[in-house]
Amino acid sequence: MTDASLTPPTRPRVKMKPKSNARAIRHGFPWVYANELVTDRRTKKLAPGSLAVLEDEAGRSLGLVAVNPESKIIARMLDRNPEAQIDVAWCAARLSRAQELRAQLYDAPFYRLVHAEADGLPGVVIDRFGDTCVMQPNAAWAEAHLEALTQALGEVTGCTVILKNASGRTRGLEGLDDQNAVLKGAAPEAPVPVVMNGATYMADLTGGQKTGLFYDQRDNHAFAARLVAPGARVLDVFSHVGGFGLAMLAAGAGHATCVDGSAAALDLATAGAAASGHGDRFEARQGDAFDVLAALGAEGAQFDVVVCDPPAFAPSKQALEAGLRAYERVAKLAAPLVKPGGYLGLCSCSHAADLTRFRNASARGIGKGGRRGQLLHTGYAGADHPQMPQLAESGYLKAVFFRLD
Amino acid sequence: MTDASLTPPTRPRVKMKPKSNARAIRHGFPWVYANELVTDRRTKKLAPGSLAVLEDEAGRSLGLVAVNPESKIIARMLDRNPEAQIDVAWCAARLSRAQELRAQLYDAPFYRLVHAEADGLPGVVIDRFGDTCVMQPNAAWAEAHLEALTQALGEVTGCTVILKNASGRTRGLEGLDDQNAVLKGAAPEAPVPVVMNGATYMADLTGGQKTGLFYDQRDNHAFAARLVAPGARVLDVFSHVGGFGLAMLAAGAGHATCVDGSAAALDLATAGAAASGHGDRFEARQGDAFDVLAALGAEGAQFDVVVCDPPAFAPSKQALEAGLRAYERVAKLAAPLVKPGGYLGLCSCSHAADLTRFRNASARGIGKGGRRGQLLHTGYAGADHPQMPQLAESGYLKAVFFRLD
Repeated sequence: MTDASLTPPTRPRVKMKPKSNARAIRHGFPWVYANELVTDRRTKKLAPGSLAVLEDEAGRSLGLVAVNPESKIIARMLDRNPEAQIDVAWCAARLSRAQELRAQLYDAPFYRLVHAEADGLPGVVIDRFGDTCVMQPNAAWAEAHLEALTQALGEVTGCTVILKNASGRTRGLEGLDDQNAVLKGAAPEAPVPVVMNGATYMADLTGGQKTGLFYDQRDNHAFAARLVAPGARVLDVFSHVGGFGLAMLAAGAGHATCVDGSAAALDLATAGAAASGHGDRFEARQGDAFDVLAALGAEGAQFDVVVCDPPAFAPSKQALEAGLRAYERVAKLAAPLVKPGGYLGLCSCSHAADLTRFRNASARGIGKGGRRGQLLHTGYAGADHPQMPQLAESGYLKAVFFRLD
Repeated sequence: MTDASLTPPTRPRVKMKPKSNARAIRHGFPWVYANELVTDRRTKKLAPGSLAVLEDEAGRSLGLVAVNPESKIIARMLDRNPEAQIDVAWCAARLSRAQELRAQLYDAPFYRLVHAEADGLPGVVIDRFGDTCVMQPNAAWAEAHLEALTQALGEVTGCTVILKNASGRTRGLEGLDDQNAVLKGAAPEAPVPVVMNGATYMADLTGGQKTGLFYDQRDNHAFAARLVAPGARVLDVFSHVGGFGLAMLAAGAGHATCVDGSAAALDLATAGAAASGHGDRFEARQGDAFDVLAALGAEGAQFDVVVCDPPAFAPSKQALEAGLRAYERVAKLAAPLVKPGGYLGLCSCSHAADLTRFRNASARGIGKGGRRGQLLHTGYAGADHPQMPQLAESGYLKAVFFRLD
């Protein structure tokens, strides 16, 4: 039991304001916003990540929450039982349940093990890479209970290495620092090979983006692979470590070009292509993706399959319009690079750009690029990234695949 | 060349009204609604399915359309070239393009070959079952050009049997009859075996619902199969010929129960289970699905995976609210039948119920059924059911998969 866990009699109580949405909480909504909570002096003094009993305006218990007076999400539901002990056993129960799902879905222990709220561990993201877990404790309660989480994670998974990645954008909103750490074992000195869709990816678990690899695109990689005819020439733009490109090579593509701004990511992609046995059919092209797309267009280059998986151009509502213009521009530049009858996959990982807006921006861009297309497939993040139905509107990842005339 | 094809000089011209959306047509929207077209006496007299040149208000050609003065969709874009000849060669070009996509996507010639507008053949639906095609000419122009379509279809696919299925609901809106016919070869006398996701389905191409099998759910069947642990007990409600149930048996389920109102459909499901080699692990239960769900609940029956794929409860905007209540009721009755930690798949094929509404109705029903769930996966119709981006809002099929607490 960590310091932040108090025994029930001494647990503070926090109260929702009259007319705030206690009903939504009862129905499973996991967050209380700062303007919904009575924030008296006592509540304001609670240390970030403190446990408290949440009450409705009539004083009826809604469950056990973690409070962070510094965050706009001032309380996160941990357990409907207000007397729950947030200890190793509690963490282990949540982790076991999460692992059971992934073990059913995947043949090997390489997946997102915990996807925050939907897995009952608010703000906690854990990716598993065989014997190594990378944990992002992106909420204050998780930071406060890191020891229990780490011990439980080791026990449930048997992993010998547990890394803490503190690069999550939301940590700042919780008042948390950005210091990475090794929580258990020793950090791997070399990139870790990860097999997905028949390709071998190299994941840099300490120096890479986020937790080292984007598991969320696995099903979309698989769909792109279905579009590959033997010997096809394919282009993967904003490729990171080669997500789409290597999957398409594994599916029989004759040649893959990966474009990214990061030389480090492209080195990993190149290593992945070699590890997959396709090093001779792989080309990395470093540079600003928009510039490279324009240059390829000027060269008259054409590919059988083109996939663009840019960073979040519309990370917030404020950035939505500019973001949609950027998605449109990607589509406009990419469409002419697709052979007649070929395929174009376009992805967005922007919360603010919903599917309809993103798809429309993509279709507009394709039109401005002088092409027309059939929409073949719409994909989301894989099932190791579950959502709470109450938060499903914000499903961030969308992939739309077109066949162009 | 059929009677309905006229040579360009004698082709009638139809004109869009001032301020109607010619721009959308230029950008690929395929339909002109009756209130957008100048319907003078001459236009009103055009025979349903007549070809005409569509002009904007300034008299500029927008392309070649098929006109049906009896339909709310008064004109359907056939070709941006106003001089195109709608003959065997034209049909064959569209069919070849459609077949090329499906040949890329699937190992065997069992798929939706043509999905209407998105495949450049407005209102025409063709499902292929090996050497047999079932065509639904659901627009007047297709009925008028049935001979050319049939000849082209035989040439492109090499199919020896072509059946006409006239049961499509939209034929009535086009003023067409509901008379099925054999267009080529001889109708199969027995159900046709179709292998998908490792299961063998029996498709009744002459007496069954629609064209005999619902290819659109193939990817969702595959996702359900991923949820099956060895020996799992699964329930498929509104099963038709056993779509989800047989796929889950093929994935290792220990026992499948299929529920449907149609004895004929259940006979096909039973035959499919036997043909798949799983006849001893299969049970068909005929009856009203709501009644059977309630009865199973009363019995305390529980399953590892439950999937409900009801008919369109909200086929129109008018039926939306009642339809959403019916989807909620399905979820409410099905949720208690799922073991703790088990899976629930819910489908909707209602145009009017968009994803958000359907998902919310499902989540409400799960809650009223006393359960909570994670949303794992959202699926749509397979890629052999492409959409025009301009019509993508109306994507009819949605499947949402939950894991229940």
